[in-house]
Parts: sequence; structure tokens; C-alpha cells
Amino acid sequence: MFIETIKTPGLAHLSYIVGSAGEAAVIDPRRDVGAYISIAKQHDCRIKYIFETHRNEDLISGAAILAKLTQAEVKHGPNADGKVQYADIVKQGERFKVGHICLEILETPGHTKDSISILLFDSEYDSGAVGVFSGDTLFVGDVGRTDFYPEQAAEMAGMLFDSLQLIADKAKHAIVYPAHGAGSVCGDGMAEREFSTVAHELSNNPMLQINKRDEFITNKLAEQHYRAPYFSVMEQLNLEGASATNAPRIVSPLKLIELQSQKHGWLIDVRPVEGFLAAHYPGSVCLPVAMLTAYAGWLFHPEDNITLIAQDDAMASAAALHLARIGFDNTQRYVVGSFTEFAAMGGDFTTLDTLTAAEVKELQQQDWQLLDVRKITEYQQRHIKGSQQLFLGHLATSLDQLDPETHYITMCASGMRASVAASYLRANGINNVKVFMGSLGAWLNASYPVEG
Amino acid sequence: MFIETIKTPGLAHLSYIVGSAGEAAVIDPRRDVGAYISIAKQHDCRIKYIFETHRNEDLISGAAILAKLTQAEVKHGPNADGKVQYADIVKQGERFKVGHICLEILETPGHTKDSISILLFDSEYDSGAVGVFSGDTLFVGDVGRTDFYPEQAAEMAGMLFDSLQLIADKAKHAIVYPAHGAGSVCGDGMAEREFSTVAHELSNNPMLQINKRDEFITNKLAEQHYRAPYFSVMEQLNLEGASATNAPRIVSPLKLIELQSQKHGWLIDVRPVEGFLAAHYPGSVCLPVAMLTAYAGWLFHPEDNITLIAQDDAMASAAALHLARIGFDNTQRYVVGSFTEFAAMGGDFTTLDTLTAAEVKELQQQDWQLLDVRKITEYQQRHIKGSQQLFLGHLATSLDQLDPETHYITMCASGMRASVAASYLRANGINNVKVFMGSLGAWLNASYPVEG
Amino acid sequence: MFIETIKTPGLAHLSYIVGSAGEAAVIDPRRDVGAYISIAKQHDCRIKYIFETHRNEDLISGAAILAKLTQAEVKHGPNADGKVQYADIVKQGERFKVGHICLEILETPGHTKDSISILLFDSEYDSGAVGVFSGDTLFVGDVGRTDFYPEQAAEMAGMLFDSLQLIADKAKHAIVYPAHGAGSVCGDGMAEREFSTVAHELSNNPMLQINKRDEFITNKLAEQHYRAPYFSVMEQLNLEGASATNAPRIVSPLKLIELQSQKHGWLIDVRPVEGFLAAHYPGSVCLPVAMLTAYAGWLFHPEDNITLIAQDDAMASAAALHLARIGFDNTQRYVVGSFTEFAAMGGDFTTLDTLTAAEVKELQQQDWQLLDVRKITEYQQRHIKGSQQLFLGHLATSLDQLDPETHYITMCASGMRASVAASYLRANGINNVKVFMGSLGAWLNASYPVEG
Amino acid sequence: MFIETIKTPGLAHLSYIVGSAGEAAVIDPRRDVGAYISIAKQHDCRIKYIFETHRNEDLISGAAILAKLTQAEVKHGPNADGKVQYADIVKQGERFKVGHICLEILETPGHTKDSISILLFDSEYDSGAVGVFSGDTLFVGDVGRTDFYPEQAAEMAGMLFDSLQLIADKAKHAIVYPAHGAGSVCGDGMAEREFSTVAHELSNNPMLQINKRDEFITNKLAEQHYRAPYFSVMEQLNLEGASATNAPRIVSPLKLIELQSQKHGWLIDVRPVEGFLAAHYPGSVCLPVAMLTAYAGWLFHPEDNITLIAQDDAMASAAALHLARIGFDNTQRYVVGSFTEFAAMGGDFTTLDTLTAAEVKELQQQDWQLLDVRKITEYQQRHIKGSQQLFLGHLATSLDQLDPETHYITMCASGMRASVAASYLRANGINNVKVFMGSLGAWLNASYPVEG
Repeated sequence: MFIETIKTPGLAHLSYIVGSAGEAAVIDPRRDVGAYISIAKQHDCRIKYIFETHRNEDLISGAAILAKLTQAEVKHGPNADGKVQYADIVKQGERFKVGHICLEILETPGHTKDSISILLFDSEYDSGAVGVFSGDTLFVGDVGRTDFYPEQAAEMAGMLFDSLQLIADKAKHAIVYPAHGAGSVCGDGMAEREFSTVAHELSNNPMLQINKRDEFITNKLAEQHYRAPYFSVMEQLNLEGASATNAPRIVSPLKLIELQSQKHGWLIDVRPVEGFLAAHYPGSVCLPVAMLTAYAGWLFHPEDNITLIAQDDAMASAAALHLARIGFDNTQRYVVGSFTEFAAMGGDFTTLDTLTAAEVKELQQQDWQLLDVRKITEYQQRHIKGSQQLFLGHLATSLDQLDPETHYITMCASGMRASVAASYLRANGINNVKVFMGSLGAWLNASYPVEG
Repeated sequence: MFIETIKTPGLAHLSYIVGSAGEAAVIDPRRDVGAYISIAKQHDCRIKYIFETHRNEDLISGAAILAKLTQAEVKHGPNADGKVQYADIVKQGERFKVGHICLEILETPGHTKDSISILLFDSEYDSGAVGVFSGDTLFVGDVGRTDFYPEQAAEMAGMLFDSLQLIADKAKHAIVYPAHGAGSVCGDGMAEREFSTVAHELSNNPMLQINKRDEFITNKLAEQHYRAPYFSVMEQLNLEGASATNAPRIVSPLKLIELQSQKHGWLIDVRPVEGFLAAHYPGSVCLPVAMLTAYAGWLFHPEDNITLIAQDDAMASAAALHLARIGFDNTQRYVVGSFTEFAAMGGDFTTLDTLTAAEVKELQQQDWQLLDVRKITEYQQRHIKGSQQLFLGHLATSLDQLDPETHYITMCASGMRASVAASYLRANGINNVKVFMGSLGAWLNASYPVEG
Repeated sequence: MFIETIKTPGLAHLSYIVGSAGEAAVIDPRRDVGAYISIAKQHDCRIKYIFETHRNEDLISGAAILAKLTQAEVKHGPNADGKVQYADIVKQGERFKVGHICLEILETPGHTKDSISILLFDSEYDSGAVGVFSGDTLFVGDVGRTDFYPEQAAEMAGMLFDSLQLIADKAKHAIVYPAHGAGSVCGDGMAEREFSTVAHELSNNPMLQINKRDEFITNKLAEQHYRAPYFSVMEQLNLEGASATNAPRIVSPLKLIELQSQKHGWLIDVRPVEGFLAAHYPGSVCLPVAMLTAYAGWLFHPEDNITLIAQDDAMASAAALHLARIGFDNTQRYVVGSFTEFAAMGGDFTTLDTLTAAEVKELQQQDWQLLDVRKITEYQQRHIKGSQQLFLGHLATSLDQLDPETHYITMCASGMRASVAASYLRANGINNVKVFMGSLGAWLNASYPVEG
Repeated sequence: MFIETIKTPGLAHLSYIVGSAGEAAVIDPRRDVGAYISIAKQHDCRIKYIFETHRNEDLISGAAILAKLTQAEVKHGPNADGKVQYADIVKQGERFKVGHICLEILETPGHTKDSISILLFDSEYDSGAVGVFSGDTLFVGDVGRTDFYPEQAAEMAGMLFDSLQLIADKAKHAIVYPAHGAGSVCGDGMAEREFSTVAHELSNNPMLQINKRDEFITNKLAEQHYRAPYFSVMEQLNLEGASATNAPRIVSPLKLIELQSQKHGWLIDVRPVEGFLAAHYPGSVCLPVAMLTAYAGWLFHPEDNITLIAQDDAMASAAALHLARIGFDNTQRYVVGSFTEFAAMGGDFTTLDTLTAAEVKELQQQDWQLLDVRKITEYQQRHIKGSQQLFLGHLATSLDQLDPETHYITMCASGMRASVAASYLRANGINNVKVFMGSLGAWLNASYPVEG
């Protein structure tokens, strides 16, 4: 009897494969399903079932692809907003055998209406569940967000409260296997730690310390979450079942020089931030690999044509895979190499200036505007006086709130998101932008004052 | 914050690495320590501490080697029978920080006098331990054996009872991380499943259903365990700290033909049982890779010279590694290839005859003696009338109980151990031996009667 | 500028990828094309061209699949027997640029009418070709067979003579990159060595020592080659362009017991020969992985349903891949495990008896018939008096030459092919068969007399 | 019979392993010898001999280490300047059997006095050598340098002429296997291509077109080569036989902040050049991984303490390995991470300004001094008027030729070496430095005038 966790970095997505005696089940597979097949093979198991804890809004499900490759049956909870074409509907109490494992469905709506949790029993030690796949209902250190149906916000929050009670009742002594870890857009307060028990959460998870339903609802309603525009695209694709992806084709740096005279959609530079600051293709947007899945869905549309600019083929492939996981399939070209060599070939490049804390303090006196692109919750906690808050994810829809004549200094917690924001502004015609390296961290280390 | 389990097949040994914020700790490392170093690197962590839950008797500890390679400190519980030369002694309540993880020592004697368990706290969610490394004190589905000090058997069993109470008190809601899984010689009743919580064990583990100390002791004293002769060698080596190992050198099949005229220690044939039955080197002992760590320590001595006979280099390397893990370092030569080709080169080979259930039934009438090499506990449960029980592990010291003139049919549950036994008997001059293929399984499937 | 050789074991097939400055070309790709794509990526190259030196008869070409995945153009020589649907026709002297490499077509018919060779020039050091992809025209130590058009045998042999002259003229100082190495059915006398130069071949290759066209033709006409029935299927598939393959599904040993009552096509046991001899599924045919591509095309038909019996998943996967490379796609099930355990589950098994040289000598006196399944050329060289020659590949079509009442001893050079033959005979109702372990090798080592 | 090439990037070093029938030989192993052992294992071969074509001056030989691990014998040519302690001396005509391969020694002094070449014969096709390991005597497109004994320069060049004649005589039809490819410091004019034949070189290699001994010597004497100071250290180490290497230990970015107040030897930043330009640790030297082996030996001493600054662990490990290959073993610490985060932790950073061609043109009018750090041969071919040439490798010993008060613009062919030079100058107190991005390439693409 084995259980393995498959983590998808960037999305902080956790999926699972469990198996026993030649059979296996996969919970919440991602789009690139090779890992599940390979683990099943190592354990000489056949994948018999695929479970989706809910219809994902932040990534493409691999259930349809995996089912096609393995002849497994896909199981999905009731009450999805539309018909999940590739799955059977399962209800409270249904049980599925996987070798000596027994999986039992709990209906746990709240995050979405179709959310389920899945209890894991060992049929030879069956007094109580030993594990629970809790989807986006219960995380380590947090619970699911309940803001996806704005008109039914209180109702959904109440449902989640009830669902959490149900899990506490049915699986108090179980290990928790959630669908996301720290860094996900599906919750703010998750622990860095990815292992816990229901009982440990009952003592430690801040949201589980709230015992009154009303108070819980009030708390949930007060939460501020961002919802990326690509979520609705994901939801639609996850009704239909996604297909496998294509690899991007290589174009040479010289070809990139040719592209300079044409319009070819977005140029996304996935190198480390520092490389972008020193030299980049004019008009390109800085978005390092590790940040792609978090922000591409905000700044670009899955249908957009995208040209990736990467240091080497491995980096470009990783970037294309990250994008495919969230439904961006039009990444047909990329460019490999250094800008030093690009410059030697006669290519145009530009730089993006950075500032230290002391320089920022100085420029603030000279009417440069600090633009803080962190989330509103981060800003409220602590910020530099005089700074304007505008969440990085909202830039695409809020450009009209910015003045092309103003001189901006972008900042965030460290300078990473600030660099992305600055590059995006420049790609959209707001040219007087510099980046605050170290951002709030450097400001605080310099012992300069903050408010909030 | 991560935790990864490193399983060592054969020994059913489980070791762990946990880490957070650039630091890591390893619990109960095996001798081949590359895996720990490589996982630490993936997480950009430095190994800061190595913990041993007790002095191992069934495998070589890698603590001294890993400490040398990483400058980590080794921590070992008090009351070991001798000085663990490479480790510091830790006591109840001592705490160690590993990034945001806090590890706290519980003294849990019983299996051995120096047994400790280690509580894992997340310093940011610290109401109760979230994990416990329970060594050989608590397993999934069983508890540690307490027969290592025969004169203090009741006392040790009582200590174990108290230690389990302590774990239940201090870590009820924690995930259990034991030092062994199913298949280990360190316990008989372990679950196939390798994940559980303390609370789930309290409801399901048969030994934890016994609430009275006296009754628990009585139960433990009634247990029948085998103790391999190599255990005492392991214990001695694990006081001193083992060194790294050498790779065996290749010799060709032709060289093996030359060996036929000389005496070169043991020839161990690690191919699948069926290959051995069809053709093997006269005088060689059948012991497939997967059974090596379980039986080599019984049938051979760590100082013996061993020549491995394997299908290919990968199999020979795996076998040599398995042997090194239990302290067998004199495996300097091996031979690769098929016996078909060996025969074509003029090499001598022999076969070992197999019998079906019907043939066994027939031969039993003709005074062939069934020799059942399963454990006494298995035999007591169910056996064929007229069969003689002699545990495979005891063959080396019990050859005088067998009669070279008798015709033996070896049997076990399936025929695997029976093949090993038959080959070992023939290597020791008891030549009239055949193997019962399918053994008790085949007998039962043929609906023949059993007793016990 | 790089060149890498991709070897396909079993088929002894050699394919190549060459590249320079971001571009690459592939010569004679096999069906599983992942290796070419991965090497191209490592070198940051785009595959621009795919060349086929001729229409393959012994393996499925991957050209159509690779072209689809990479948008590369496929180039094929003129005069194929039918239209190669996925390729452009190229003629003598056409040149293709791949970075700083220049590839030039030589028409070299003889082995087939559409055979070409491809000269490789370095455009910066272009006095003479530095390499030549010689397909099945010139091998290391041999030349291509010319028996595929029986009515034009002399004409084809003459063409080959001229083609070899052409290569000697145009590429005397080049390295030779042939399409096959030792062990291929496409030539008998190939060297074990896979690297050579045209000039070295001119001095060493026995066929290139024949300077007169007539004499060369006479020699070629005297050659005896076997032609597997699947060759014609391959040729047809290689006109159309093959598709990618499916992975076989796992069935458990228990399922295999069920199969015993039904008819499910062929059961092929791909374990090492020795495992088969000791215990196998009644009616199954022994054909170890390493021999699959050499004999499956003779004994079975690509349309046949095949159930593989393997030791583990890795072995089964390798076997399915080998079969797919020669067009066998109906291998949908396989079984993993040991026959010891199969017997314990109540499964039926049988053994296949082996004989030593001395035993064979003895049985020959008692009217057992030696059946030598080596090639006629091997037999003519040396054989045991009284033995009957019947090539293993011909068994499927020559069963009527054997007498079900006769007692046969199968033999070959070592016992490998003899085991395959014995199992095939028994699967076809000829039951009195034993295998001569070591075969001719053991006979000679015993200093028994041979003739021939 | 197999041959595999092991390339060492950075050093452009080529080593080889050949094998046949269970035996193998390695030619010119590098210090990290795992690759040879692993290839030998794949082919089920024992490494029997190790050959050194000469005592290496540009890398640490792995011969002593590999011999210790495999019990192979090491063979080295006569006339080394000192006793190679771990090797036997071999002479012209000595032959060594490796399975069916025969290796024969040719004494080919010229590059060094102890240089040998090794002919490869296939004992079954032995009319002429089929391969020649030509060491640093004959390369693809070039021949070895002969300037290591300045007082005997003409004599050495003459010896090389004779040695090349010998190779042409003995191995005209052989494939050439040289010890270096393009990019090595051991020759300037090597082809990008790494495969050739002696005959093809006779027609294409520029140096082999010179038929008169005197003319050849004159040509060699006119060559301008640089000799890194670490060469003499290598030569000494390669007499004694090097040991294996240690892995560097990780220090955190915070630890690096602490280091700022102390002196800890060199800080080498191995990230891509662009990352360094945007932000780096004050006082650190830019030397990307790919340039390490080419320049570390010039700028630093093998005994120096080195702290590596890398993007991640993989990059740091690669850098430490590159350094170990050329004898730098004191790289005990490194730092992983981005400078954005380093700045957020309060760490100090600095930038290095870049210039475009137009900006350079402008600044030249304002008395900024162009410093061209290419080799003198590159400079002589074409350079910008008014620029000062000083080879990057000579900076360490020529700092006194530069004026701390002058404003320098560093340049090279693309900007890579220019960045290294600028960082090195600043680390040595010459602070007014900017880097010409694109350097001569960008200048030419802008159609600005050059001379030379």
C-alpha cells in the first residue's frame, strides 16, 4: 500500500496516487500525466480510478487525458456548474476498492458546489479513516476560499463550515492530503508544511478555531481574494477535458531580430529577473519561470500568441510546460541565448534601471511615484507612506489608473514582482519606470519608516 | 518544510529526511548515504543533524559516514550497551531546531535500552507534535520486539508498554514515521501500509488494544522471534561507525570454470529462483536479490568470501549493495551471464528438480520427507501432516538434525524459501532434495488436507 | 558539429543524427523517435531533414512520425516499389545544408532499387567527404544482400558492385556510417566493430577484395539468405508511414489462470531461457527479449494477438517496444511475476527438460532425433552426424516436415535457439522434445566428433 | 567492439573508452572518472589499461584515481620531464590487447617530449589501423602547439613535423581521435567538427598542406600562444597523480552578508553575465560557468580560497567540478539565490554599467579608453582605432600597465570577456569601468570603421 504526492511548482498544486495489490487511484491529476503512469508502473499497478475533488479553476485537469491513456474511470462530485463530460458523478457514501484500500466519498461543498473529499480506509485496519483527500476544502493552516459565487457568498461560506465539521467528524485521526500547498492562489494562509492530520489542524488551523458558524461566515466574507481572469477559461476547459500539448519550436536569435519589425503577440522573458534588468528585448515582459503560473493568467490570455525568451532549451521547455498547465497552448516559438551575444549580432536591447533604498528615498522627494504592486492585504499590513497600491495581477485591466507622464518606481516585497510590473508598464507605453531592488525588505533593513 | 521517506527494500527499512529553510535532519540513515545528500541538495539544504532512534541490529548505520561527508552532528539516545563513538548522547526533552522545525527527544526504551522517539513540531503551528519518528518502538500495525535481553524480557516489555503510553500522551495527533515497514525481521505483524497516525494506531494496532501492562507483558513474552547471528556483528559495527564500501570486480564465465577446481568461499546465485532450478553452478546457493538481506545474515557470515552469480551487472551491483548494507564486504567477484552460454563454453552445470502438489502427495507415500522451512509461527498455523519444521534461517546451525541418507522435499509458502533451502542442503552434502513448487499454496489450491 | 549514433539492439540497426549551428538531420530513424528529439534539444538544434537510405524491410521507419512531430522534410531515393507517401524523392547530386554541414545524395542501388548513400561534407573543410551514410549498401566487413528481387538477382548484384565503386570513388577518405551492425538479418559477415573508413574497408572488407564485376556477381548469387515473412508487411507499412504505438495493459497472474480455459492468441514468454526451462505456462513460446526482433517476425504475424509473460514491468515494456519496432501492435496484455508464486496460486505450469552432451550422445543411440535449428550456412560448416537441419525461422512453415511421434532433441550453437524451437514445437503439438544445453559448444568442449 | 567519446566542456577535452569482449581501455581520462566506470559497466567490461597520450598541462589527469578504483595499468610515453609515479613507460611498437582490439604505441613527440599516439587495430580486420588516438599531436583542422620549451622551439616543431609524417604513414586510413576539440587552449585553429580521418586531414588540415620541414618549423615559430600560469601546477600534479575532490559546502545569503566585513579570498560569480551586470556582490569577479576553465587558471591560483556565487545548487556544483578539473580544490563555500532577494535581506549590491556601440563612439571622444581584452591574434586581425590591447588572461600580471585614474571601456568580441575583465579591474581597485555590450560585433553591425 503506497501513497505518493506529485507537486506542481508554481501552482503549488498537490496531486496524489495511491495503490495496493496491483491497483491504483489518482486524485486531481495535472495536465502532464506522465508522472502518474510512471509511478503506477514502478509499483506494477493499473490505474483504476481517477478522482477530481472539484472542477479546478486554476489549472487544467489531466483527468480526461489520463483516462484515455489508461482506461481508468473518472469520478467527479455532484452539482458542478455544467456537465463534466468525461466523468461519472459520485455521491456521499459511495465506496471504491483499490486493492486493500477503500475510498469513500464525502460531499464537502463550500469552495465550489461540486467539492468532494475522499476518505481513505485500509480494509485490514478499518476502524476510522487513515487519510482524507481534502481538495480545496481543508488545507494545512487554512481552508478553501468561498468567493466564487459572489451572490451566494454567505451561503457558500456556511456550506464550507458544515463540510469542515463533516471532515472533523468522519476523519479526525486521518492524515490530511490537500490539493494545494503554500503559494497557491486558492488560499492565503497555508502553512509551508505539506503534512498534517485533521486533529492537528483542529488545534492549529486558525480557521478551525472559530466554532460558531456565523462568526466563520463573517470571517470568510471579510476575506479579500483576487480572481484571475483565466479562471473562467479553465473552468470551461475542465468541463470538456483537455488534450495533450505541443512542444514549442526553436527560433534563433537572428530570427528574433527579424521579429523586431513585426507584431507577433507577447514576448515573455522567463530568465531570472537580474538578467532582464541588465539587458532585454525592447517590448518584452519579464516573467521568470517560477512566477509564470502565478501571473501569466492575469497579464495574458490563453489564446494569445506567445514567444518565450529563455536562457536555454531546458528553461524554455519548463516555461512552455508551466503555461500549458494553465491552458496557454500558443507558445510556438522561443529563443535561446545571451543578450551579450544578441548585441554582438547587431540586435537591439534595452535595460531597466534599479534603485537602492537610499535612492528611492531621494527620488520620492523629486515627485517620483512609488507604485506598490503587492496584494491589498500585504499593503494594509505595512507600506511606505505616499505609495500607491495596485495589485500586479490587476495591471492589465487598470492601466487607465496610471499616468504615462508620471515617473514611477515599482516596488513589492523584494523586487521580483516590481520588475515584472515595470516591464509590463513599459511594454504598454508607460516608459518612465525604475525598479526598487530589495523593495520593502531593503527599506526596512535601512530602518526607514513605514505605516499601516 | 519537507519530509521524504527513503525505503530500503529487502530490509523493509524506512529512514527519513526533514528540512526547512536551508537546514535538514536525517533519521536512521542506511549505509549508502547518497540519497540523503542528493535530496538535501534538491532542497538547497545543509544536513545539520543525524538522529539514530536506537542502535540498529539488522543493518549497518550510515550515520558515521554521512556525518563525515556533511559535518552534521549525530545524536543517539542514552543507555546503549557500549559507547557509540561517533555520536552525542541526547536525553528526554532535548530540542533541536531545523529551520522552522523543532525536534524533541522522547526516551522510549523497550525494544532496546537506548531507543528514542523524536517529536516533530512546526514552530509556527506548535500546539502538539505533528509527527513522531517512532523507530522500532511503534510500527504501523505492530510494536517493537522486546526479546533482545533474554534475562530481562519482562522488564523490557514493561518498558515498551510505558514508552507507547508516552507516545500516545505526547503525540496522539501526530503522523507516525517508524523505522520499518512490512517484511522486516523487527516485527511480525506490520501493516503493508506505511502511513498512519498515532490516533489511528490507538484504534487499530492490535497491541495497542491491550490496556493492562501485565497483559501486554504476557503477550510479548509469548512472542516467538528469530534472531539472526549477524545481529551481534551489526551491533558491534554500529558502535564503531562503518566505512563506505567497495564495488565487486567482474570475473568472466570462463574464470568461473577455473574456479571449479578451487575453494573460494561461497558461491551465491542471485538470479530468479526459476533460473537456478533449470541450471546452476554445482555447489552454489540460490538466494535471489530480493531475499538477500533477509537470509544472508543467517546462512553466511559477514567475514565470508562471497562470489556472486548474477544475470547481469545491474543485478550483481544490487546484490553487492544489499550485502554491504548488512556488513558483508567481501564480495569481490561476480559472474555475469546465462548458463546456456556457460554450458556452451564447456562449463559444468546442474539442475534442481521440482515437484507439483500431486507428485509430492505421491512421493510422501514413498518415504520422502517433507521439510517445511517456514517460521515456527507459520507452521503452527497450518502445515502438511508428517512434515518436519526447520526454519530456513536455522539451517546453518541445525544441519546435524538432518540425515544425509533421507530423501527430502523442501517446502515453504510458495517455493521460494524452499528453493533456497534445497540449494543450501545440497551445498552441504545432503543431495537427495527436490523442491515443492507452489508449496503450501499449491497444496491448498489442490484441496489436499492440512493440519495445525 | 556533432554526430551521434542511435543503436537499436535486437535489430542491430544504426541510425544517426548530425547537426551544426542550430540545425540537424536524422538518417534512418526507427519507430520510437524520442531519442532523436531529445538529442536535438540537447544541442539546441531543430531537425530540418530526415533521410531514408532505402525503404526498410526489417523494421518500421519512424520518418513519418518524426516528420509530424518536428515539421522536418523527409527525403527518400528514387525507384521505390511504390510511392513513399510521406517523403520527397531525391536524386544523385542533390545537396542539403544543415548548418555548416552539406549532405549530398549518391544513388547506390543494389540492395534495393531505391537505395541511396549520403555524403557528408564540412563546408569549411570541403576537400572530399568526411563521412558517408552507406545504408545497406556498405557495412563494416560486409556489403548489402541483393536477393530481394529473385528474378533480377544478377542485375541487382551488378548494381551493387557499381554502387560500391561509386562510394570508393566519391568517399575514399570518409568515415563509414552504415545502417546495420553485427547481428542484423541484412548481412551475415558484418564485423563486431561499428566504426571504419571507406579506405579501411577497401583493404579489409572481404567483398571489396573482389575486383571483377562478374566474380562479385557470382559470389553474391551463391549467398544463402533467409527472408522473414514479415518483411513484406514492413515494406508496405513503410510506404504508408507508421503511427506511434500503444503501451500494453497489465493483467495479473490470476487473470492468466483464467486465460487457461480460453484461446487468446500467442503467449510469448520473454524471460531468460533458464526461467522458461524450469517453469512456464503450458502452451507458451519461449522467446527472450534479446531474441524477439530476430525471430518474432518468422514465428508470428504482426496481426496476431500476443500476450507477453515477463519477469517484471520493465522487461514487458522492453518486449512490447521491440515488437512495435517491427510492426507488432497487438500486444495488449502481459503478466508479471514468478512461476513459483504462480504455482502457489494454483496455476498450472510445466517444465522443459535439458540434456548434457553426454546424455545427448546416449539418447542418440536410442533413436532420439537431433534437430539442429541453426542456419544452413552454420550447419554446413560443422554439425553432429545424424542431425537434421531445419532453420528456426522456418519452423512455422515446415511443421509438416516433422513427425509428432518422433522424440526430438533440439540443438543450435549454445542452446538458446534450441529452447525457442522446443517450446514452439510443443506449442504446436509435438510434445516429445528435450533441449541440448550448451548444444554444439558443449559437444565440442566434450571433444565429441563433428562433420561438415 | 565499441568506442565512446567523453567530452569535457570548457576544456574542450576529449577522452575515450574502447572495449571488446569484456575488456576496455581508457585514453586520457579526466579527474572525475565516474563516466568511464559507468560506460565500462554498461558494456560488462573490465578496464584493463589506461593510456595517457602525454602529460597534460591544461587539466588534472584522472589516470591515478581511475587506476586505483579499477586496478587497471597506466601507460605513459617516454621522456616526460620527471617521473610519472603512477604509470609504466611504453615505447614505440609496444602492443596491448583489449579483447579483439590491438593498441600499438607510436612515439610522436613535438607538442611535448613524452607525446605518444596510439594505433587501434581490429585483430580480425588488421590490414592497417582503423583508428588513431592522436593526443595533442594531430587535431581536426590543426596540429599541436610546440612552444612549451622556449629554448628548443625549433627542435620541438621539427619533431612534430616528423611525428605527423609518422601518423600519415602508419594510419592514413584511420579515424582520428584527438585529445581536444574546438575551444581548447591547446590549439587555435581546430575545426568545430570532432570527427575526421587522417586522409581527410591530409587534404584539409592547413598545417598538413605544408610539405617542407623548414617551412613547417617557420610557421610554428611564428605562432603566438598564451600559456596560463596554472599549466606548471598541472604538470607537477600530473606527475604525482591527483586525488578525488570534495564537494563545496553551502552558505546562505545571510552568511554572505557577514562575509562582507571579512577577507575570504576570491568571490567568483558564476551566473550568466547579464545577471552580474544588473546586480552583484561588491568586489566579486564575474566568471560564468562556461568560461571558468578557460580563465580561472589565469586570474586565480589553485591554492586560492574561492567562494562561488551561483544561481542554484546545480550551477554551483558544476562550477566546483570545473574548477576541480583544473586543480582548484579550495572552493569550500558558495551562495545560492537571487540578488533581488539578497537586497531585500539588506545586502549590499552594485551594478556594472553597459554601453551600446553608439554610446561607446560618443565616450571615445571624451577620453574614455577602450581596453580590448581579446588575444593579440584577434586584435591584429581587426580592432577599433585607439583601443589598447591587453589579453584577459594577462590582467593578473599586468595591472601596473593600467592607470587607476583613467576611465576604461572594456571590450572583446561580444562583451563576455569584457564583462569578466571589467569585474576583475574593479575587484582590484580600478573603478571607472564600463562594458561595451556586443563589443566588436555590435560595432561592426553598426557599420563603424575598424582597422587592422
